Amino acid sequence: MINRQYKEMLGAKSVIRELSEYATARGKEIGYENVFDFSLGNPSVEVPGEFTDEMIRLLNEEDTMTLHGYTPSLGNPLYKEEIAKSLNERFGMNYKAEHIFPTTGAAGAIAHAVRAVTEPGDEVIVFAPFFPEYRPYITGAGLKLTVVPADTDSFQINFDAFLECLNEKVMAVLINTPNNPSGIAYSTDTLNRLSSILKEKSAEYGHTIFLISDEPYREIVFKGADSPYVSGFYDNTLSCYSFSKSLSLPGERIGYVAVNPACEGADLIVPMCGQISRGTGHNCPPSIIQQAVAKVCSLTADLSVYETNMNIIYDTLTELGFSVIKPGGTFYIMPKALEESSIEFCKKAKEYDLIFVPADGFGAPGYFRMAYCIDTEKVERAMERLRKFVSEVYGR
Amino acid sequence: MINRQYKEMLGAKSVIRELSEYATARGKEIGYENVFDFSLGNPSVEVPGEFTDEMIRLLNEEDTMTLHGYTPSLGNPLYKEEIAKSLNERFGMNYKAEHIFPTTGAAGAIAHAVRAVTEPGDEVIVFAPFFPEYRPYITGAGLKLTVVPADTDSFQINFDAFLECLNEKVMAVLINTPNNPSGIAYSTDTLNRLSSILKEKSAEYGHTIFLISDEPYREIVFKGADSPYVSGFYDNTLSCYSFSKSLSLPGERIGYVAVNPACEGADLIVPMCGQISRGTGHNCPPSIIQQAVAKVCSLTADLSVYETNMNIIYDTLTELGFSVIKPGGTFYIMPKALEESSIEFCKKAKEYDLIFVPADGFGAPGYFRMAYCIDTEKVERAMERLRKFVSEVYGR
Repeated sequence: MINRQYKEMLGAKSVIRELSEYATARGKEIGYENVFDFSLGNPSVEVPGEFTDEMIRLLNEEDTMTLHGYTPSLGNPLYKEEIAKSLNERFGMNYKAEHIFPTTGAAGAIAHAVRAVTEPGDEVIVFAPFFPEYRPYITGAGLKLTVVPADTDSFQINFDAFLECLNEKVMAVLINTPNNPSGIAYSTDTLNRLSSILKEKSAEYGHTIFLISDEPYREIVFKGADSPYVSGFYDNTLSCYSFSKSLSLPGERIGYVAVNPACEGADLIVPMCGQISRGTGHNCPPSIIQQAVAKVCSLTADLSVYETNMNIIYDTLTELGFSVIKPGGTFYIMPKALEESSIEFCKKAKEYDLIFVPADGFGAPGYFRMAYCIDTEKVERAMERLRKFVSEVYGR
Repeated sequence: MINRQYKEMLGAKSVIRELSEYATARGKEIGYENVFDFSLGNPSVEVPGEFTDEMIRLLNEEDTMTLHGYTPSLGNPLYKEEIAKSLNERFGMNYKAEHIFPTTGAAGAIAHAVRAVTEPGDEVIVFAPFFPEYRPYITGAGLKLTVVPADTDSFQINFDAFLECLNEKVMAVLINTPNNPSGIAYSTDTLNRLSSILKEKSAEYGHTIFLISDEPYREIVFKGADSPYVSGFYDNTLSCYSFSKSLSLPGERIGYVAVNPACEGADLIVPMCGQISRGTGHNCPPSIIQQAVAKVCSLTADLSVYETNMNIIYDTLTELGFSVIKPGGTFYIMPKALEESSIEFCKKAKEYDLIFVPADGFGAPGYFRMAYCIDTEKVERAMERLRKFVSEVYGR
């Protein structure tokens, strides 16, 4: 018999994927340029030329057996060193290579981090709004997921609700800043308060509560935003990163876990991640990609288009009377729908070929997410369509 | 608190890794050319130029966002199609693209395959001798591992012992042919008999027993060997493959699960693998590697050196009176030690700078493994050293 759990999961279709498939089908009917698809968070800027050049250089110059051979089980030493150096220089940390565990993107990073600092049956807290894939990452490790309701005034952390949720079974807290879907970056104040609660509660419970910080949008931060480096606030932090967004390499599955050198078990967690890999069949990310990213890990693609798009959308939404908080980063924005049900709102928008995602699955019912990793010219045309939609349907 | 299980796993050092580290250290002392390191199964032949050329072409010509963007969650369509086509042409199968699930090597393939056809608490059978990493692959999925003792006359399957081990809880049987560590390929007779037992017992127990076939050495088969394609014998087969050995790409983590189109749940298993990935943080193998391998998936590196080395070693071992079965493929051979304890034997060999691995951890106590993916010139010098060792220590 095939596995029942995974078979049943096939029934639950992804809302985002369904909308994206609809947009593709609709594009074939009326021309893709006429479908305003804000559904998918797929980077829309070119990979830096330096990455491509380094890949070609490696292929032309390196011995194929070294280039494509097994990496050490804890990762390519150069990749680990360069990342430690880059984080230390940019964020005043003191990582060594041995605190860096290379992973296949942030998904792999979170899968290792949660397993390293919990045991099956433990509890992990996330804050709404949150990326829905956290659910399988956490339940897949045999853990209980608790969602703290959103602070809808700011989409920072709802600390009162957090304090109510905390209990002795909580071994880790998983945050995502800048945040998918809200675009909000956790401020210095938020991280100070979070850190002080975690310290206090760790002492009270007699065990460390680890902070797992998912940061794939860390390099997409807008002017004036207060978006500090999380691990600087709390020693027991595991930072999960992916180069998917900063280098526009989502398909190459390259990221890491960075363990704060002052973390409990700091010297053990990376080797433990190596053991975790054995059970999940993960292994290291691809050798050539580790070697090429080692050379460009402090660079980013030209990410400025995201801020340009955000400003156009934010201004239009505000002008049309949407309730919306200005993003501090990412390529997402999460306005409140113009009626109680964001699902109904998004259905009506779809009639105008505006493809928005209801944020209910992200823990923010009544809100919707727009992913603006598309051309600015198209964003501008989409805003005209949005005006028309809002005027005709909601009389604004 | 960090996870106790993974922390404890750190204590258990890998015998192979320790020996390999010893060989490296010893090489620094006396020159690596003087250390005869048969410990590691690392491909020693060049990657085919066609792969490198295709990588460079993709990097030069393709749009970076398509090249490095997210692949569909069930894999790059071209990669899946080309693999199905190649398997159909070479082995008379009728796979379609949708029966192929791209994975990060054979480790990822086995991790998905076992989860797809079992539920935690079920039992999986493997046959000694077996690759020791099967243990974490299987226990990591919450399954019970049962090892059927070896048939030491042939290192085919010990069917009497297999029949004794079979019971209603067995949901899958995991085989590896050609085999690491013995080098033996399962014959037509063996696979016919295995298939007929699996059919009979599936009927008796009222549920399918799936066959998971781990085949990373499938393309390294020696003259005269009878090494047929496993899935052709039994419909309920999931074939797990890696291009690590055939294309010398172990570090690039590229492989697949191929689900027999006549398998129970054939149309569901690949989508279920996609769901399994969500919980383990696996995701697809790297996009550019999928695209490049799609173009060269029927090629192999020049694998002839392995057969040359095998013949030299087999002839010498036989001449020196070792009990050894001639390998049908791979780059391993597994002779019986010249004393009861293979651990003692390998310790003594190490004094002669001959680095062999005791096969006790592979379920074959009293035997040792030699991995001969090294230069033929060095193999020849190693045989001189072996003669000296056997003569001085064992008087042969």
